[in-house]
Amino acid sequence: MAVSNIRYGAGVTKEVGMDLQNMGAKNVCLMTDKNLSQLPPVKTVMDSLVKNGINFKLYDSVRVEPTDRSFMEAVEFAKKGAFDAYVAVGGGSTMDTCKAANLYASSPHSDFLDYVNAPIGKGKPVTVPLRPLIAVPTTSGTGSETTGVAIFDYEHLKVKTGIASRAIKPTLGLIDPLHTLHMPERVVANSGFDVLCHALESYTALPYHMRSPCPSNPITRPAYQGSNPISDIWAVHALQIVAKYLKRAVRNPDDLEARSNMHLASAFAGIGFGNAGVHLCHGMSYPISGLVKKYKAKDYKVDHPLVPHGLSVVLTSPAVFTFTAQMSPERHLEMAEILGADTRTARIPDAGPILADTLRKFLFDLDVDDGLAAIGYSKADIPALVKGTLPQERVTKLAPRPQSEEDLSVLFEASMKLY
Amino acid sequence: MAVSNIRYGAGVTKEVGMDLQNMGAKNVCLMTDKNLSQLPPVKTVMDSLVKNGINFKLYDSVRVEPTDRSFMEAVEFAKKGAFDAYVAVGGGSTMDTCKAANLYASSPHSDFLDYVNAPIGKGKPVTVPLRPLIAVPTTSGTGSETTGVAIFDYEHLKVKTGIASRAIKPTLGLIDPLHTLHMPERVVANSGFDVLCHALESYTALPYHMRSPCPSNPITRPAYQGSNPISDIWAVHALQIVAKYLKRAVRNPDDLEARSNMHLASAFAGIGFGNAGVHLCHGMSYPISGLVKKYKAKDYKVDHPLVPHGLSVVLTSPAVFTFTAQMSPERHLEMAEILGADTRTARIPDAGPILADTLRKFLFDLDVDDGLAAIGYSKADIPALVKGTLPQERVTKLAPRPQSEEDLSVLFEASMKLY
Repeated sequence: MAVSNIRYGAGVTKEVGMDLQNMGAKNVCLMTDKNLSQLPPVKTVMDSLVKNGINFKLYDSVRVEPTDRSFMEAVEFAKKGAFDAYVAVGGGSTMDTCKAANLYASSPHSDFLDYVNAPIGKGKPVTVPLRPLIAVPTTSGTGSETTGVAIFDYEHLKVKTGIASRAIKPTLGLIDPLHTLHMPERVVANSGFDVLCHALESYTALPYHMRSPCPSNPITRPAYQGSNPISDIWAVHALQIVAKYLKRAVRNPDDLEARSNMHLASAFAGIGFGNAGVHLCHGMSYPISGLVKKYKAKDYKVDHPLVPHGLSVVLTSPAVFTFTAQMSPERHLEMAEILGADTRTARIPDAGPILADTLRKFLFDLDVDDGLAAIGYSKADIPALVKGTLPQERVTKLAPRPQSEEDLSVLFEASMKLY
Repeated sequence: MAVSNIRYGAGVTKEVGMDLQNMGAKNVCLMTDKNLSQLPPVKTVMDSLVKNGINFKLYDSVRVEPTDRSFMEAVEFAKKGAFDAYVAVGGGSTMDTCKAANLYASSPHSDFLDYVNAPIGKGKPVTVPLRPLIAVPTTSGTGSETTGVAIFDYEHLKVKTGIASRAIKPTLGLIDPLHTLHMPERVVANSGFDVLCHALESYTALPYHMRSPCPSNPITRPAYQGSNPISDIWAVHALQIVAKYLKRAVRNPDDLEARSNMHLASAFAGIGFGNAGVHLCHGMSYPISGLVKKYKAKDYKVDHPLVPHGLSVVLTSPAVFTFTAQMSPERHLEMAEILGADTRTARIPDAGPILADTLRKFLFDLDVDDGLAAIGYSKADIPALVKGTLPQERVTKLAPRPQSEEDLSVLFEASMKLY
């Protein structure tokens, strides 16, 4: 169990210049995306760097939903800059791009695929020392500030994959709730669904002692280890916060208490899933996002069709947990109870349907589209969705119940309509 | 909030040689005490080092309840050895001695008092890089494998103090429940009381945003920050484990489930108090241990009078939490409930007495001596006990309620008899 250092509090971003000075950094790479580069979180970081006399170069070309190509562009920038520390300001895309830039600039002779997860890449363990990376999340969903994972689209194969190693985990996460006040309603909702599913999936993932193969050397153990007594704590606690605060955070942009708590929940769930892993909702989400046709999410400033990550993850959750419940019905009931279900008279065999119904009600209350059909998919798309899920075995094999292609078809079909 | 890396599981100690190899270590310092050096945990570590071709030197002169002199002896050994990594196998004394050895060997021109807590030392921030340190706890109490704290007796002033810096936190803690099976009954009980008080004190410590002064630079922020939303999680969870498993662990040496859980609880509580801090039970415990007259604890292999740390901490707990309850009565009631009290009809003003009674019952069930009188103190000793508490302001100022010398007198007097 590896856990990141995080610092939480309104205004902690202002300290980033001192932190870098304390680390002895003299030449810093500041990464963000074009949209954020004009907004207060980046300005706060820049002001702090200037105030503390830290030289830095800005890279604001991070691609939202990064690809191997966009990763490589950031890597080139990092190699040329010969930086001695990194600061990433943004959502998961920015933090993940910055992790990759730090990794490959620190290991300049590696091929890009060396560190990419097998079977697409070689999944080599990282043994080179990396530079310090400070992550400043501006959304409350990914938890990337606490994880050793960097996700991207591998364009050649049209598939999501990633790099997963404890070595790329940020040195420090600055969890500053002030950055959450600018988020539009749907961004809060969808990133909150990512937190919800991180908690639900990591808590129900295959237990760590049942994972196979069981590598003999700790360094070849995967970052995603299966559910364990420590990740369980983070998952349950994150879920309790989601149950208490997500609706308030979505509905009222000025509810600093609710948005602060969701910002912390994102990091908590990140620490949980960053060690335990996620499974089917995430594994199935990648083709749902990747094969998007015309759906354009409300509140997202992009000029192309987009199914936001958190939405693509949560739409299959009622079907997924109905499918997995038989492996750990008590845990499924416990989660339903945390999310508001009355489980006092619940029967163990009903754990799956009870959690699914609880999730449907939760999503309905939060105005979520009515299933995959509502975002443009039909039955005819299911074979492609299944095909896009198969390469995600890094996560799907962490599902507590093995699944055939037929099972995946049934799960996608059951997710076409929710209410 | 900084958290250590820990790995948990029966047999994880065997991996230590691979971990060191993965870190590139070639010349390792293995620290333990004389008693343990003949026992299985140390043998397991040595076998793993040999098997993985790691050169090492053994230092088995760690003093149980270390002093500045015993720290300095270990530092000299470390300086001469020019080690590139450390392994500490033992309880808090060994882990703390190893932290100090690593620190001063990495900062060879520092005076010993440079890093010792103010006002006794200068409390300088640690800016030198330290060598990796792997901690293998063999008791279930201290949590030192997860903290940046090293406690010792400063002989000149006859006072307990310590070094506290995130920089001396072990790189990795190997939490191996197999090491807990050798512990005698009283060692399990007393180390469990340390866990109990780490949880109770860190959960009731002054909230982090009420601590003063509030340093402007993160590096000068104390390791003990006051209670906060993250340490709270660890404290509550550790307390739940204590409530469920401590009695079983004490009573049955073969109850691997109970002893495993207490071993994990020790680390959990360590992560909690290592960030939040402890307060009065710990602050008052130092003179209780230090001024010991003739009391010889059962089950401890020492040739001198000894009040074990966990016992010296827990004996004042009913009085302390009666005193602090008014500052956060809900938290005090919540802890009483976790420890088995029926709080459904409890009134807020009764939170202190309810928790105190719950603790008394818990201690009575575990055959704890009947208060300070039973371990050899009388009313006449109170002024000396108070005097010995005053220099502990690093922790006592984290109490939620300020305390006068008169208050401390009353607390010691109320702790003379428990039942």
